[in-house]
Amino acid sequence: MSAELIAREALAMIDAGGTDPFSLPRLADRLGVRTASLYNHLDGRLAVIEGVRRLVVEEMDVSAFAVLPWPDALAAWARSYRDAFARHPHAIELLATTTISSPATLAMYEAVVEALARGGWPERHLVAVLTSVESFLLGSALDLVAPPLMIAPSEHAPQVPVLAAALRAAHGGSKSARADQAFDAGLDALIRGLTARLAELGETEAR
Amino acid sequence: MSAELIAREALAMIDAGGTDPFSLPRLADRLGVRTASLYNHLDGRLAVIEGVRRLVVEEMDVSAFAVLPWPDALAAWARSYRDAFARHPHAIELLATTTISSPATLAMYEAVVEALARGGWPERHLVAVLTSVESFLLGSALDLVAPPLMIAPSEHAPQVPVLAAALRAAHGGSKSARADQAFDAGLDALIRGLTARLAELGETEAR
Repeated sequence: MSAELIAREALAMIDAGGTDPFSLPRLADRLGVRTASLYNHLDGRLAVIEGVRRLVVEEMDVSAFAVLPWPDALAAWARSYRDAFARHPHAIELLATTTISSPATLAMYEAVVEALARGGWPERHLVAVLTSVESFLLGSALDLVAPPLMIAPSEHAPQVPVLAAALRAAHGGSKSARADQAFDAGLDALIRGLTARLAELGETEAR
Repeated sequence: MSAELIAREALAMIDAGGTDPFSLPRLADRLGVRTASLYNHLDGRLAVIEGVRRLVVEEMDVSAFAVLPWPDALAAWARSYRDAFARHPHAIELLATTTISSPATLAMYEAVVEALARGGWPERHLVAVLTSVESFLLGSALDLVAPPLMIAPSEHAPQVPVLAAALRAAHGGSKSARADQAFDAGLDALIRGLTARLAELGETEAR
């Protein structure tokens, strides 16, 4: 039994499990082995989670960082990142709160921060920029799997007239069209704001 | 047994439960009643979840929208929003993926979109702006409960030199100082970008 197979089964279990917690005994059960024997194949719970992370990260695309300016590359990577987590929404909390240590995932982050550094971001800002973009992406992936009508004033509409009208104005499209509009607006704002901040940092340091 | 008491017990269960799924039978068990009798007190699972949401929303502060320009008010509300969810991280996925319908929560959103509209945002953009900021806030709340070293290259550091150096440069402070730095950077960028976008929309419509 390979670590790859175990990770695939773990991801399938997470995807199918709704909000059920990830547990090694349940994984062992699905694989038809005893929990203890899982430890012969890999180094415990964190190793399984890193295997799961690698599978999700493989669905993300960092190729743009090699060819586009950082703001455009960041936008392209961001789209693939959100799409990957939107296919595995129940993995978001687990992966967002577990330490990242596998070479494949580290390589993705290296591609991102290396491009930011090449674009002029000072070293001390790299982790904050990466983390803030990632927070937006994880939250956006959650939104993508939210119900079609996330806010439904129904009989309370008269008490919240601006909200009710805004929802009517936005609810022309499908749920995914609305999620895309919010994602595009936020990503555009975030990258504009980061670009402005970098320009400011450059001016400060040039003084 | 009041709906308030049931909601408080449900939130305590979610807070204590790690990634355990929220379930009515477990809640009934904690309250020492039968599941069926919960339905005498409120209208099922969604009513319990709305009660939980109200408790979390009560920890958020919308007062700034009445007195400050929208970018500053949005920043103040954003901080209280992230802090509230950071105190209840296991409620994030549940609340982010369940329809919002209670008057208390609707009133909070009304305060936000009403201030955005007063600030000049066209009606058709209100929901996208609100959703994109909320995505960032939910992701940031998840980051606040992530491990102290979210990315740990350890023995792989030589393969990811830029990342390893960036982490060393960022890791001077505490975990919460780093999370705050990322949150501040992202919130600042998002609000700057939104301000720029609104100015652009105004110019387009003035033409």
